[in-house]
Formats: sequence, structure tokens, C-alpha cells
Amino acid sequence: MTTTNASETQIIADPDVPLVRIVREFDATPEQVFRAHSDPELIVQWLGPRDLTMTVDHYDCRTGGSYRYVHKRDEEEYCFNGTFHEVRPSELIVQTFSFEGFPDSVALERLMLEDIGNGRTRLTATSLVDSFEGRDAFLASGMETGVREGYERLDELLAR
Amino acid sequence: MTTTNASETQIIADPDVPLVRIVREFDATPEQVFRAHSDPELIVQWLGPRDLTMTVDHYDCRTGGSYRYVHKRDEEEYCFNGTFHEVRPSELIVQTFSFEGFPDSVALERLMLEDIGNGRTRLTATSLVDSFEGRDAFLASGMETGVREGYERLDELLAR
Repeated sequence: MTTTNASETQIIADPDVPLVRIVREFDATPEQVFRAHSDPELIVQWLGPRDLTMTVDHYDCRTGGSYRYVHKRDEEEYCFNGTFHEVRPSELIVQTFSFEGFPDSVALERLMLEDIGNGRTRLTATSLVDSFEGRDAFLASGMETGVREGYERLDELLAR
Repeated sequence: MTTTNASETQIIADPDVPLVRIVREFDATPEQVFRAHSDPELIVQWLGPRDLTMTVDHYDCRTGGSYRYVHKRDEEEYCFNGTFHEVRPSELIVQTFSFEGFPDSVALERLMLEDIGNGRTRLTATSLVDSFEGRDAFLASGMETGVREGYERLDELLAR
């Protein structure tokens, strides 16, 4: 018998298309999880691994808006930007994403929030790119650590 | 021996990823072809088949901008919208695209313009979606006619 920890982050490489699917449950409502993803004052408190400091250049999380943020560790600086294709509060965010170090590798991302009862939410996030090589390089880059650690920080933020 | 008409529109379904690639050459400079794609007063004159009338709701073709337009035929109305992830004048437009009838089917599109000498330009446009079924339904929808006819109209506009 397999037991699954509901707050474990599942990171799945799709077998058919160059897409990564992340599934995670949170002990908070869709409204709370959405707010933590859309309010720049909250997102800087959890997005990414603990040893990076995040600052927001702009974060206009609405349909047709755009964003840019910076992750810093000592002298290292990583900048990311994109646009918000569609934002449905507490339900869905469809956005583009690129790391400015590789501006021609653009991902199309979809965040879905689902009310699973008892004040809990299931988050499903997909990231689609145009090649399996690009997708697999992204998975091999150590993104798993950043994603898992970020969601642990989000658990802590939601529990406050 | 195969002869290829350089102004023939090639529409290719990628065998590995759910992407459509369109290649077309134009008897105009990259600057002219870019302007016809980014200026709303020009784009309404050629985008889509001849029997549809296009009106622009907004068309803010710059990095971080967004757009929405409507195609009309008698009583039928088709609305499309998206965001511009990145715009590099005369070179590249990366944008999202959705038909409002199927808002959850979002495509990530890339338009590349290449100077091939003698005042001519090669356009390569790709459209990436998250499933082969979605890509193949798009190809089966009659989009080929609209694309080919649109580029013939663009030829005419560029020749004026």
C-alpha cells in the first residue's frame, strides 16, 4: 500500500508534450492561495528557494498585465518577466514566463486552483515549452528544489 | 524536379511537438512586414480571409502590451485576444493568442522576420498549444485558407 502525503509536491514530466505539471495541496482556501500568487507584497515572501531574495520590478496580475522580478543571491542576479494572458481571481492564471538569461525560451504557464473542501485547495500548475530538450533541461536545472522549498514557504505564509 | 514558388505559404505540422509552423516570403523589407503586423490601421487591411471584416478593440504591440480584435461576417462574430510577451521591432513578436469561443485553448505564438536580401523577407510563424488534438483540430478548422488568403492580401498591401 502506498501512502501519499497530500502536501507533497508532485512534479511530472508529461510523456506526450513538452510540458511539466506540478500538483500541490494547501491548507488554505483558493482565495488565500490566489492572493499569495497575485499580490506582489505576498509573492516576494515565498516564491523560490530560501537562499534567494526576491524583489519585484512590477507585478500587474490582471488579464493583459505584465510582470518582472529579480531573484538575488550575493552577487548573482536572475531576472524573470512575462505577461498575464488571463487572470480569473481564485481560479486561474495563464501567463508567459521567461528567464532574461535565455530570452528566447518562453514558457506558457497555467495555474489552476480547485476547492477540495475543508478549507483546502489543490493547485495544478503547468509549464509548456516548444521542445523536449528545453523542458528536460529545465527539470535538470534544480528547479525541483526551488519549487518544493517555495511551496513550504507558502505553507508557512498561509499559516500565519 | 520540384519547383517551389517562393511566395507559396508553407504550413507544417511539427512531428514531435504540438506546434504549427508557417513559412512565407514577402517582396518587402522586414521593417515593412513588421509594420503591417504591428500597426492596427494596417493589420485590419489584411489579417484573415477576404470575406471577414476586422475591427480592433485595442492593439498595443509592444513588450508587455495586449490586444483584442473582432472578425465579422454578416451576423457571425469571432473575437480574439492575447498579450505581447516580447516585441523586437522588425525581428520578433512573441505573443499569446486565444479565440474567445474557446478561452481555455491558449496558444503561444512566435513571429520571426529575416532579411533574405533584394528587399525581401522570410516570415516564420509558430503556434504552440498543449495537445496534439488541439493542434490538429486547429489545422482541420480551415485555418489554411484564412492564412493563405491573408498573406495574399498582405502582398497586395505591401505592393501599394
